Amino acid sequence: MATFADAASYLAALNRRAASPAGFRFATHPLSFYPSEREMSEPMRMNLSAIVLEKPTESFAGLFTRNSFPGAPIRIARDRMKQKSIAGLVINNRIANVCASGGVEDADRVARRCAELAGLPLDSLLPASTGIIGWRIPVDAMLDALDPLVKRLGHDGPLDVARSIMTTDAYPKLRSTEVGDGMIMGVAKGAGMIEPDMATLLLFLCTDVQIERERLESSLRGAIRESFNVISIDSDQSTSDMAVIMSSNLRSGVGPDEFDEALTNVCRELAWDVVRNGEGAEHVIHATTTSAPSEEVARACAKAVVNSPLVKTAICGNDPNVGRVIMAVGDFLGSRGIEINPDTVRLSIGDEQVFGGGVFGLTPETERRLADYLAVRRMLPSEGFPPHEQSVEIVVDLGIGSARGEAVGSDLTHGYVSENADYRS
Amino acid sequence: MATFADAASYLAALNRRAASPAGFRFATHPLSFYPSEREMSEPMRMNLSAIVLEKPTESFAGLFTRNSFPGAPIRIARDRMKQKSIAGLVINNRIANVCASGGVEDADRVARRCAELAGLPLDSLLPASTGIIGWRIPVDAMLDALDPLVKRLGHDGPLDVARSIMTTDAYPKLRSTEVGDGMIMGVAKGAGMIEPDMATLLLFLCTDVQIERERLESSLRGAIRESFNVISIDSDQSTSDMAVIMSSNLRSGVGPDEFDEALTNVCRELAWDVVRNGEGAEHVIHATTTSAPSEEVARACAKAVVNSPLVKTAICGNDPNVGRVIMAVGDFLGSRGIEINPDTVRLSIGDEQVFGGGVFGLTPETERRLADYLAVRRMLPSEGFPPHEQSVEIVVDLGIGSARGEAVGSDLTHGYVSENADYRS
Repeated sequence: MATFADAASYLAALNRRAASPAGFRFATHPLSFYPSEREMSEPMRMNLSAIVLEKPTESFAGLFTRNSFPGAPIRIARDRMKQKSIAGLVINNRIANVCASGGVEDADRVARRCAELAGLPLDSLLPASTGIIGWRIPVDAMLDALDPLVKRLGHDGPLDVARSIMTTDAYPKLRSTEVGDGMIMGVAKGAGMIEPDMATLLLFLCTDVQIERERLESSLRGAIRESFNVISIDSDQSTSDMAVIMSSNLRSGVGPDEFDEALTNVCRELAWDVVRNGEGAEHVIHATTTSAPSEEVARACAKAVVNSPLVKTAICGNDPNVGRVIMAVGDFLGSRGIEINPDTVRLSIGDEQVFGGGVFGLTPETERRLADYLAVRRMLPSEGFPPHEQSVEIVVDLGIGSARGEAVGSDLTHGYVSENADYRS
Repeated sequence: MATFADAASYLAALNRRAASPAGFRFATHPLSFYPSEREMSEPMRMNLSAIVLEKPTESFAGLFTRNSFPGAPIRIARDRMKQKSIAGLVINNRIANVCASGGVEDADRVARRCAELAGLPLDSLLPASTGIIGWRIPVDAMLDALDPLVKRLGHDGPLDVARSIMTTDAYPKLRSTEVGDGMIMGVAKGAGMIEPDMATLLLFLCTDVQIERERLESSLRGAIRESFNVISIDSDQSTSDMAVIMSSNLRSGVGPDEFDEALTNVCRELAWDVVRNGEGAEHVIHATTTSAPSEEVARACAKAVVNSPLVKTAICGNDPNVGRVIMAVGDFLGSRGIEINPDTVRLSIGDEQVFGGGVFGLTPETERRLADYLAVRRMLPSEGFPPHEQSVEIVVDLGIGSARGEAVGSDLTHGYVSENADYRS
């Protein structure tokens, strides 16, 4: 697990990852606006970003939120996924364009105009938005900003985009890996409203490895299942979640397993980055369920642990309150009607077995060691960047099967309450 | 909705409610102990309480947690519910006696010895415990304290018991009502680990109204369904939840509807008291779903709203962030696969409709009114007592059926994190 001496060393790591796959261009541009919803004495700020292929591609895939009130960009993007080809994305932060009057028309105008300026087919760009729900995007200010945005194409890089799409994120999220003679690069935005089932607010993956659309679709689905679908920060699924992958097909292809593994790794690293950057997060909690009757039960049980507010607050306090973990597991099993024998369940935190044979194996000595274990894994961000990539490892062995599943979440801290109790003001 | 000028006026209200049904005796007694699990320089304190009938009764009923790791007292009490008669309860706070070695034997010894001292059949008392999970109860110190406890029977009243069973509760919870020429009185303990499906940690109901066991069972089930099963503080169901009702049968019976209604009212008032006293709670959130396809969906949808961390933190900040409510509703519906037309969904907060026809009806004016609405409903406890009984009313009309359901929860505040991040130290 990586550790970072300071913010500069984290930034250096980000820069090392920030290579661009062949055939992609990136651009960012800030703008100021006065929202129609509120009188403001100062203008608000928004960033536009673009990820554009040099030529439209037929190799692309996307996954979108299942929320019943999807944002306007999601509705447009879902439609455009049915096209034969697309050429990229135009993205704004600050306002999510969800259930705002005229939202679909607004998003469509911005995406079409951006495509026109970039010399691309008019319906070839997907819009993507994140931020306040219910407000209208400042479409005139955005249209005005498209010209300078498009002029930046090729001058900005992936790290600029990763930074430009941030809202409450403390730091940009960018990961990349080599595959064959090509690469996969991904940027993600997300720090709240994060929950399994298509989890990050925004995830954009670019590759130059030659791959067909169908393979890309199944590879993306598999990668998300093992990455963003196991993370859970506050068990809310946003109206604007989207993951899109595009390939320029400019480098040679690789075996399917090789591509799947590389994509899964990039997605897992980004998903963990999102958890690590969870609003106010001070610990990453990684729960694993083993010996479960099914993978679905294993994953849901692990999720019940990382979503329990009492577990999350205990870990925030470096309090090895293993009773709360057992309570969360027992609540999950009992309310699902899953029969277990308490005597066969084992629970460990780090290397310590803390429950087994139906009783807690707690001594003052164990508790002190566990408190130290939690304290060491605490992240006190240095200028917003995480100082390390360690997690609190909780393993629940149900003793009633052979399936396995995991979930990753963060603790519940004063920082979380502070950030969310007054996000808009 | 009642308001209370100060702590004294709340205490006066509690005293007015604290009548005892005929045929019951109450007792409390404190003790000090050193736990075997930790070295302590100061002893810990525990309260014993007893609620005892003058004669064993055949009219009793109980509901218990569905958690798969039930505490030892739950396991014993479940067994004793199969008996023909019981005579009361002996209760301790501080240690919940869950998955501790020898826990069942410990709890049984305490309950039997208490019955013996009170001149009751040895297996006629149910044990009940709340507090730390995993630790062993200090059985010797408890056995020593039983003699003075039993001597207090008849000298203490219901309010003493309500106070004695508290752990992190800020104030005692006691409600009562007259029924025919008798009464129903209930005391509850609970401020955290509260979630629908048998929700409070401890609920003890006493009545002198003549009623048979079967009627009492169905009446209790119905009352809990409409009270403790709609409240949700942190969506964790404890290992120790129990609700028990006993009748001395010393007053005449009433019609079944009259008894059901009275019991439901007492339980609802206690359930709302528990929410109001939720750890760190500053607002009570009452969500109602209407025009739902089924009552089950209506209740689950309302619960999704009151359990959403983002809704809870927004309300904590008096921020009328209606986007987060729509997000929570849309997340619930989407992940359950319940099809709706966003255009027919309506959402109101207080008297304001804030969403309808697929768009948000937000103006700066509406937002100011809603922020005021939330600010007025904030509870700033005066010496731990709630200053009023008002709630934040959220109504979601799904427009796809005729069923209705509700959920009651509290906001997520710095106080919640502070109380739970270091409960044991």
